[in-house]
Amino acid sequence: MFIRNTWYVAAWSHEVLAEGFFSRVITGIPVMLYRKEGGEIVALEDRCCHRGAPLSLGRREGDCVRCMYHGLRFDSAGACVEAPAQQRIPPQAKVRSFPAVERHRWIWIWTGDPALADPAQIPDTHWLDDPAWRCRPGYIHYDVDYLLICDNLLDFSHLPFVHRTTLGGHEEYAAVQPKVERIENGVRVTRWVMNTDAPPFAAAVKHCPGKVDRWNIYDFTLPGVLRMDSGMAPAGTGAREGTRVDAAEFRSCQALTPETEHSTHYFFSMPHNFAIDQPEVTDSIHQSIVEAFAEDSAIIHAQQKNLALDPSFRMMAFGIDSALSQFRRIVDQRLEEERQASPLAAEGAAR
Amino acid sequence: MFIRNTWYVAAWSHEVLAEGFFSRVITGIPVMLYRKEGGEIVALEDRCCHRGAPLSLGRREGDCVRCMYHGLRFDSAGACVEAPAQQRIPPQAKVRSFPAVERHRWIWIWTGDPALADPAQIPDTHWLDDPAWRCRPGYIHYDVDYLLICDNLLDFSHLPFVHRTTLGGHEEYAAVQPKVERIENGVRVTRWVMNTDAPPFAAAVKHCPGKVDRWNIYDFTLPGVLRMDSGMAPAGTGAREGTRVDAAEFRSCQALTPETEHSTHYFFSMPHNFAIDQPEVTDSIHQSIVEAFAEDSAIIHAQQKNLALDPSFRMMAFGIDSALSQFRRIVDQRLEEERQASPLAAEGAAR
Amino acid sequence: MFIRNTWYVAAWSHEVLAEGFFSRVITGIPVMLYRKEGGEIVALEDRCCHRGAPLSLGRREGDCVRCMYHGLRFDSAGACVEAPAQQRIPPQAKVRSFPAVERHRWIWIWTGDPALADPAQIPDTHWLDDPAWRCRPGYIHYDVDYLLICDNLLDFSHLPFVHRTTLGGHEEYAAVQPKVERIENGVRVTRWVMNTDAPPFAAAVKHCPGKVDRWNIYDFTLPGVLRMDSGMAPAGTGAREGTRVDAAEFRSCQALTPETEHSTHYFFSMPHNFAIDQPEVTDSIHQSIVEAFAEDSAIIHAQQKNLALDPSFRMMAFGIDSALSQFRRIVDQRLEEERQASPLAAEGAAR
Repeated sequence: MFIRNTWYVAAWSHEVLAEGFFSRVITGIPVMLYRKEGGEIVALEDRCCHRGAPLSLGRREGDCVRCMYHGLRFDSAGACVEAPAQQRIPPQAKVRSFPAVERHRWIWIWTGDPALADPAQIPDTHWLDDPAWRCRPGYIHYDVDYLLICDNLLDFSHLPFVHRTTLGGHEEYAAVQPKVERIENGVRVTRWVMNTDAPPFAAAVKHCPGKVDRWNIYDFTLPGVLRMDSGMAPAGTGAREGTRVDAAEFRSCQALTPETEHSTHYFFSMPHNFAIDQPEVTDSIHQSIVEAFAEDSAIIHAQQKNLALDPSFRMMAFGIDSALSQFRRIVDQRLEEERQASPLAAEGAAR
Repeated sequence: MFIRNTWYVAAWSHEVLAEGFFSRVITGIPVMLYRKEGGEIVALEDRCCHRGAPLSLGRREGDCVRCMYHGLRFDSAGACVEAPAQQRIPPQAKVRSFPAVERHRWIWIWTGDPALADPAQIPDTHWLDDPAWRCRPGYIHYDVDYLLICDNLLDFSHLPFVHRTTLGGHEEYAAVQPKVERIENGVRVTRWVMNTDAPPFAAAVKHCPGKVDRWNIYDFTLPGVLRMDSGMAPAGTGAREGTRVDAAEFRSCQALTPETEHSTHYFFSMPHNFAIDQPEVTDSIHQSIVEAFAEDSAIIHAQQKNLALDPSFRMMAFGIDSALSQFRRIVDQRLEEERQASPLAAEGAAR
Repeated sequence: MFIRNTWYVAAWSHEVLAEGFFSRVITGIPVMLYRKEGGEIVALEDRCCHRGAPLSLGRREGDCVRCMYHGLRFDSAGACVEAPAQQRIPPQAKVRSFPAVERHRWIWIWTGDPALADPAQIPDTHWLDDPAWRCRPGYIHYDVDYLLICDNLLDFSHLPFVHRTTLGGHEEYAAVQPKVERIENGVRVTRWVMNTDAPPFAAAVKHCPGKVDRWNIYDFTLPGVLRMDSGMAPAGTGAREGTRVDAAEFRSCQALTPETEHSTHYFFSMPHNFAIDQPEVTDSIHQSIVEAFAEDSAIIHAQQKNLALDPSFRMMAFGIDSALSQFRRIVDQRLEEERQASPLAAEGAAR
C-alpha cells in the first residue's frame, strides 16, 4: 500500500539520457523514463498492455516507442498507435502515462490521479542546481521498507552512534532534545547544540579552531522528502539568532521513494555554499555522506533482518521518537484518506 | 496444476547414459531415468518411499537401484525388494514407476494414469533421427511458467522484433495474418510470406540471390509440442502450390515440459534436408537457433518479472493472439476434464 | 514451533571471546552472547527493544552494552539503564535475558520460562573437557528442519551406505536390529555387531589385525542431544560383557539446535581415550567425522529438497525407524504439553 497522490522522485536528471530508455520500479510499478526529441521527460508504464513485456527493451521511433516483443507502437502519451496485422486499434490499448516534472536535477513523477497532479506541490530543492551552491548527486538502493529509513532520518540522535567518524561528533549531540513541529504534510525538526565539537565531515573541509554552535533544521514531508538547513559557526557568534559569520552551511536534499513494499530508492545530495570553487571540498563532503549513508545502510538492513525474524515484534517508543511517530501517523492518515476517498482507485492505482 | 494424461519429453536420449542415473524434475515430480542392462529406459520417482531421499544418489545393482541413505533396494518397476534388518517388505513399499518411451532421440514419460498411456499418441518427430535430415540437440532451462513460452511459439509476429538478426527478416513478416486451425489437442498455424527477404539464419547457409517465398506451418499440441514445416524457396517458383525447387526446408521439433509451476524444460532441434553432408551447415543453423532462443529467453524472463510485480495485471488480446488464445483454452479445458474425471487422481497424480 | 522449556547448546565456549559479542539465531530468536569482565556468560536477545537493531553491533561498556543505533544502554540483565535525552526509563524497557550455563566447553541457554531453568537438567558431556579424553570441536550449519537430522542420528543403518569409507564398514552392520529403549526425555539405542570389520575411521588410528566386536550405545534426548559410548575391541575378547581390552573407545557428544524452522546448528565432537598424547590421532578422528558429516549433509539436504517439492509426501515407516519414530512422538508430546500448559506463553516465548 503506497500513497498515490504525491510526487515521488524517480531519478536524477542525468540518469535519463537524450537517447534510449531508463527503467525503474516506483511504488511497485515498472516505469520507463525517456526524453522527447525536445528534451521533455516522458514517464510511461514499462509494461506493454499486450503481453506485459518491458517497453524499455524496445526501440525509440521519434517520440514513440516500439515494443520489441510483438511490435506494438505507443506514442508518448501511452496510446497504442500501431499493431501488426491489425487495422483498428481499440482505444483501451494503452499503457499508463504518469505526470512527470524535471526540476533542479530531480525528475518527479505522480502515480496517483493525474487530475490532482499539481507541480506547485513539488518541494523546493533549488539548492541542487543553484549557482551559489555546490553538490554531487547520490543514490543508494535499500532492501527495506522505506519507513525504516524515514525513521532513521527523523531521529538524529543516531548521529554520534552510527556516524562517529563521519557526521557524528560528540555524544552530547544526542542528549539535546530537538524541537518538533507539525507542518503541512510533515514535521519540522530543529536541533541546536551550542558550544560543541565540529562534526568530522565538516571539520575536514572547514577550519574550526575552537568550539562551534551546530544546527540541524529540516522539514521532512510526504512521501519521504528531507530538506535541511544545517551547519556550524564559531561558538557564540550568534548563529542561533540569525547571524551566520564564518559559518559552514549546508542544504541537504534527500528523497526516499519506495521501489516495492520491501525496497527503496534513496536520492540524496549535500549542497554547500562555501569553497564552491574548490571541487575537492565538494568531493570530500560527498564522500563523507556516502560513507555515512553506508553506515546507516548497515544498521538498517541489520534491523530489517531482525524484524523479519519475528513479525510480532513491537517497537517501544522512547522520547527521541517524537518526530518519527508523528510522521508515521501522517503517513497512516494519508493512506486512510486515499482509501476512503476512492477505495477502487486506491487499489487500482497500482495498475 | 499440470495436465497428467499426456506424454512429456523428459530428456534427450544422450542425457541418459548406459550407466548411472539421470535426474530431472518433471511437472513437480522428481524423476530418475536410467537404462536397464538391455538399454531399455526406466523412469522412477526419484524419491525413496522411506524418507524421501533421492534414489539417483544411490547405487546401480543390475537393473535395480539401492538407496544409499538406508540401503533399501528397488527393482526397475519401483517395488522395494529389500530393506535392512527386515524380512517382509510390505507391498505398498514402492516408488512410482512411469511409462517411458524412447523415440527419435527423445525420451517421453507419462505421469498420469498408466492404464491410459498409449505410445501411439506420441507425436511423430522422426526428422530428429531420419538419415535424410540433420540436426543437433538443444536444451534451455526457463524460470517461467511454461505457458508464457507456449504463447511465444504461437505468435510468430515476434520474429522480426525479437529475432531481427537471427530468425527474423523483414518486419512485413509480422504484418501477414497467419491461418489458424483447430486440430486434435492443439492448433495448426500456417503463415506464407511471399516475395520477401530470406531470414538471416537461412541466408547464412543457403545462397539466396533474390527474394524468396517463405513459410512456417506448424502443429502445436498438448502438452506443449511444436512440429514445424518451414523454409524458403526462390520467389514465384510455386512453393505455396507444393513445388519445392531449390528450397531450404526445416522440420523443427520443440517440446516444452513444465519443471514446476514456475520453471520449464525446453527441448528443441532444427532438422534440415539440404547440405546434410556439411556439418558446418548444421552447426550454423543450430547456433542461430541457440542465439535466437537466448533472445526469447531474455524477453520472456523480463515479461515474467513484470507480471510478478502485479498479479492483477490482465493481458490485452490483439488480433495476433488468435492461436495462443485458442491453445490456452485447450489447456484449460483439458485441465478441467481431468479434474472432473477424477478429482482425487488429478490431485494425487502429483504424488 | 519449538520446544521452549529445555536447554539448547548455543555455542562452543571458544566462540564467545573475552571481548566483543557473539551473535546467533537460536530457535528463531536472535541471541547475543558475551562474557562479563569476570568471564561469566551473558545471553541477551540481540534485538533492541527500541527499534529492533542488533545489540551485537553495539559497544561494550563494562558489563553493559550500548546499542549503536540510538545509544540506549542495557545492563547484563537486559534492563535499559540509559536513553538519550530521557531522564526516566520505563521498567518495561528491556530485552530478554536468557539463563545461560557454560559447561564442558558448551554454552547452554534456556529460551523458555526462566523459573523452570534448572542447570541440573543439562546432559552430562564431561568427556568434552575431561583430561582422560581428547577431542576437537565441530560445527556445521544445515538448511533443513532439525528433525531430519534427528532422524539421521536415530537410525545408524545409514552408516554403511552414507559413510562407506568413513564411519561405515561392512553392510552387515545395517542388518543388525538395534535395541531401542525409552528413557527420560528420549531413547537409548544399543547396537552390537560381533566379529565384523573395523570401521575405516577407527582402523585409521588403531591397529586392528583381525575382526572386531563393535558397539554404538547412545542416549538421544530432548531437544536433540546425542551422547554415545561407541568403539571396537578385538573380536571375542568380551567387550559386550564389559571387558574392554585393547579397545578403541569414543564418547561422541552431539547437539542439534534449531536456528529457524528450516535451519539448524549442529555441534559435535568425538572424544577418544586412547593415544591422547598424539594430536595426529585426534586430528585424524576429527577429520573423519567432518568428512562423514559432510556426507550426511549432502544426503539430508537432497532429501529436504525432495520433501519441499511435495508437502503431501508421507514417509513410510520401516522396521529400522523404531527409534526415530519414538523420538518424534516424544517431541510432539512435549510440544503439546507446552501448548496446553500455557498457550500464550508457548506462543509468546518466541518473543
